[in-house]
Amino acid sequence: MADLEDVLSAADANFEDSLARLKDLARIRSISTDPAFAGDCRRAAEWLVGELNRLGFDASVRDTAGHPMVVAHGGRRDDAARHVLFYGHYDVQPVDPLELWTEDPFEPSVKEIAPGRKVITGRGTSDDKGQLLTFVEACRAWRQTRGEVPLRVTILFEGEEESGSPSLKPFLESNADELRAELALVCDTGMWDAQTPAIAVSLRGLTGEEVTVHAANRDLHSGYYGGAAANPIHVLTAVLGDMHDDTGRVAIPGFYEGVRETPDDIKTMWEGLGRTAEGFLADIGLSQLSGEEGRSVLELTWARPTAEINGITGGYTGAGFKTVIPAEASAKVSFRLVGDQDPDAIRAAFREFVRQRIPSDCTVEFKAHGTSGAIHLPYDSPDLTKAKDALSREWGKPAALIGMGGSIPVVGDFQSMLGMNSLLVGFALDDDRIHSPNEKYDLRSYQKGIRSWVRIIDALST
Amino acid sequence: MADLEDVLSAADANFEDSLARLKDLARIRSISTDPAFAGDCRRAAEWLVGELNRLGFDASVRDTAGHPMVVAHGGRRDDAARHVLFYGHYDVQPVDPLELWTEDPFEPSVKEIAPGRKVITGRGTSDDKGQLLTFVEACRAWRQTRGEVPLRVTILFEGEEESGSPSLKPFLESNADELRAELALVCDTGMWDAQTPAIAVSLRGLTGEEVTVHAANRDLHSGYYGGAAANPIHVLTAVLGDMHDDTGRVAIPGFYEGVRETPDDIKTMWEGLGRTAEGFLADIGLSQLSGEEGRSVLELTWARPTAEINGITGGYTGAGFKTVIPAEASAKVSFRLVGDQDPDAIRAAFREFVRQRIPSDCTVEFKAHGTSGAIHLPYDSPDLTKAKDALSREWGKPAALIGMGGSIPVVGDFQSMLGMNSLLVGFALDDDRIHSPNEKYDLRSYQKGIRSWVRIIDALST
Repeated sequence: MADLEDVLSAADANFEDSLARLKDLARIRSISTDPAFAGDCRRAAEWLVGELNRLGFDASVRDTAGHPMVVAHGGRRDDAARHVLFYGHYDVQPVDPLELWTEDPFEPSVKEIAPGRKVITGRGTSDDKGQLLTFVEACRAWRQTRGEVPLRVTILFEGEEESGSPSLKPFLESNADELRAELALVCDTGMWDAQTPAIAVSLRGLTGEEVTVHAANRDLHSGYYGGAAANPIHVLTAVLGDMHDDTGRVAIPGFYEGVRETPDDIKTMWEGLGRTAEGFLADIGLSQLSGEEGRSVLELTWARPTAEINGITGGYTGAGFKTVIPAEASAKVSFRLVGDQDPDAIRAAFREFVRQRIPSDCTVEFKAHGTSGAIHLPYDSPDLTKAKDALSREWGKPAALIGMGGSIPVVGDFQSMLGMNSLLVGFALDDDRIHSPNEKYDLRSYQKGIRSWVRIIDALST
Repeated sequence: MADLEDVLSAADANFEDSLARLKDLARIRSISTDPAFAGDCRRAAEWLVGELNRLGFDASVRDTAGHPMVVAHGGRRDDAARHVLFYGHYDVQPVDPLELWTEDPFEPSVKEIAPGRKVITGRGTSDDKGQLLTFVEACRAWRQTRGEVPLRVTILFEGEEESGSPSLKPFLESNADELRAELALVCDTGMWDAQTPAIAVSLRGLTGEEVTVHAANRDLHSGYYGGAAANPIHVLTAVLGDMHDDTGRVAIPGFYEGVRETPDDIKTMWEGLGRTAEGFLADIGLSQLSGEEGRSVLELTWARPTAEINGITGGYTGAGFKTVIPAEASAKVSFRLVGDQDPDAIRAAFREFVRQRIPSDCTVEFKAHGTSGAIHLPYDSPDLTKAKDALSREWGKPAALIGMGGSIPVVGDFQSMLGMNSLLVGFALDDDRIHSPNEKYDLRSYQKGIRSWVRIIDALST
């Protein structure tokens, strides 16, 4: 522990310089979605390569069909060393509408927004430049103090995260052997609240599906045909109306295969987080939980699967009225998945469920949209325990093991393409305004974020 | 009867001239929907006024905010005379696409389209210039033979039927006393088939309604909120999916109040018409009846009420996929009504049905669209019997008493504004291609149509 305290002290001693480096990186206008900033994206990649090489990493800018990746190798190289892959992204969101910013989005500055609460303002200071530097600066402190990071470290920084990551999968595929490690560390998530660190241990998966019901061979007049000819909107709404039973459970046979109950100790921990249904729903103007009866809001959004209609259309939807029986009606339906639910099996089960409810003279057409399996780090994983303990010591409060209701594509890709679990640790706060004007990152998030990684690196190395 | 034969002979003797007059009228380009033809519409009205005045009617062109009406008074004026209002329309549909016409749409000509089957071609020859002239020419035969039509006759020709009749209601309202008669005669419908004359004795009514379900105060991400927040598409589809029970009946409480069973003799007559579900549905690519179980296709479309979703929309409906839980979803729903169903009561019942199924934290908004009550001439009406017998004698085959699944607004207006029943008799055939290129009217329809009105006028006068 004496050693670890030295590393933490070094991190603290570096902090003003760490902040200067974050400012340097945040000044680079690396907006990935706008081709006008392609040169800035490359400059950000080159800046990171320079810093990493100064830290003893073997770092390089790696071209892709889009913005370049940064790949770096460093830390212990001996066979006994554990190997981690750290992921972050150097690209940022656009800054429109510019007039809503109170500071220049690309001239980061430090402000005290409440007594004792200092932040650094600017686009990307939180998402994800500040976050990815927490890890880089932790590596710096280890190197200064001990000569090297006590893990074998591969770093991957992406430059297209804010624009759909078109080059990520091809890059992972072409460089799988170089990038594969025992565990991925991802720093692109948030704290539970300003006092409580968090590790995201589960992400729901997704199956997207589009269904179109065809009835008559043309649109019909409802006066002439109404009451005798099948109406595809009726067929579709009846089928979709059957998708849930009276208790809110999804009624598709086999849907819950692979869904596990949340362990009681995890449920108890979640209860301790204090998120009430009332508070969660009040913000969006609602007051009662939808979905499965008898489940808490955190269970419903983190640990239970869903079937949602995301879009529906059929017949006349313009102004006024038209008494038509349309030839077809369609809906977009998505399933959020948990545990070991198989996205393709869910798609097949839904299609069978629909087909069984379609009148024999109607036809149904399906179109597959994206799939991704649910991601979950086992609650009893030793790495998780180590990271949790390290975070809890740094923040003086037990780290929350949280779920995420949506998916983070890179985590699924690491799992499916490189066979790696991911440890998702981040220090963003709900009020960081990522993707919005006046993005900021708390200096406390930055400093204790660096210290947190110092501790996690230590914990994982033993 | 000797007298009647004389009138019929006079009608036949006139036929070549009657045909020449139809050609004259059909040459006038009275397309009501296109302002470029406003002058032609007026010319058609003036042409009719000229003809009617030559027949001893007191006829005039009557200005409206749109195209003019023609109103004429003639026939017997003594107090003992029965009083009928004859309705037709002199305006026609546009002729696009012109290149699909094999003859000039406004240069009517007589063609033999099958051995012994002659037709007159041209826009409006069937709908409704040929049809309205059947009545005018019948009046001519009566006047030539007997000096006058044995009924008191008011004629109303409209010039905006093909463009939504915007001036009709105001005109009926302003001229109610002048136009009110004991019975309206409307010649704008068809034969059951080429051999079988028909009287339309019922028209279904309509209640149109738009329903919007509001849930959260904004669109939500289905990853973050899915499983916990109400999805208005689910709410809407569940409500609409409840509208019908497993036997196809409408499940809204009170919906069937005022619906009467079709008398057995009428059902037997309808069965005799030989319309099978298979034949009716095959044309539109379907094979099984929708709607209430155990009802024939003619009952379902003529004598039973319906609830139909004519349009539905919610969430993301563009290309690709968006995992949104929308803030709202909406549908347009229409009810076809029969018997004494009250359109306003149906609207109220539907709204109550929806409200009871809306979660307490969602809201629902309704928008009323059109309403019209069902129209039905009592099957035992003496006028109906007279007209039926007259038609049956002319065509040598019992006239079919048919229903119509849709509404004809003028009939509802006559009922509600002038308190008049309508007798709907017409001689169009299914292959007349009204509203399409190559419209035609069979000379047999025209000649026997004139003779039919000669007989009906006689029958109603006794």
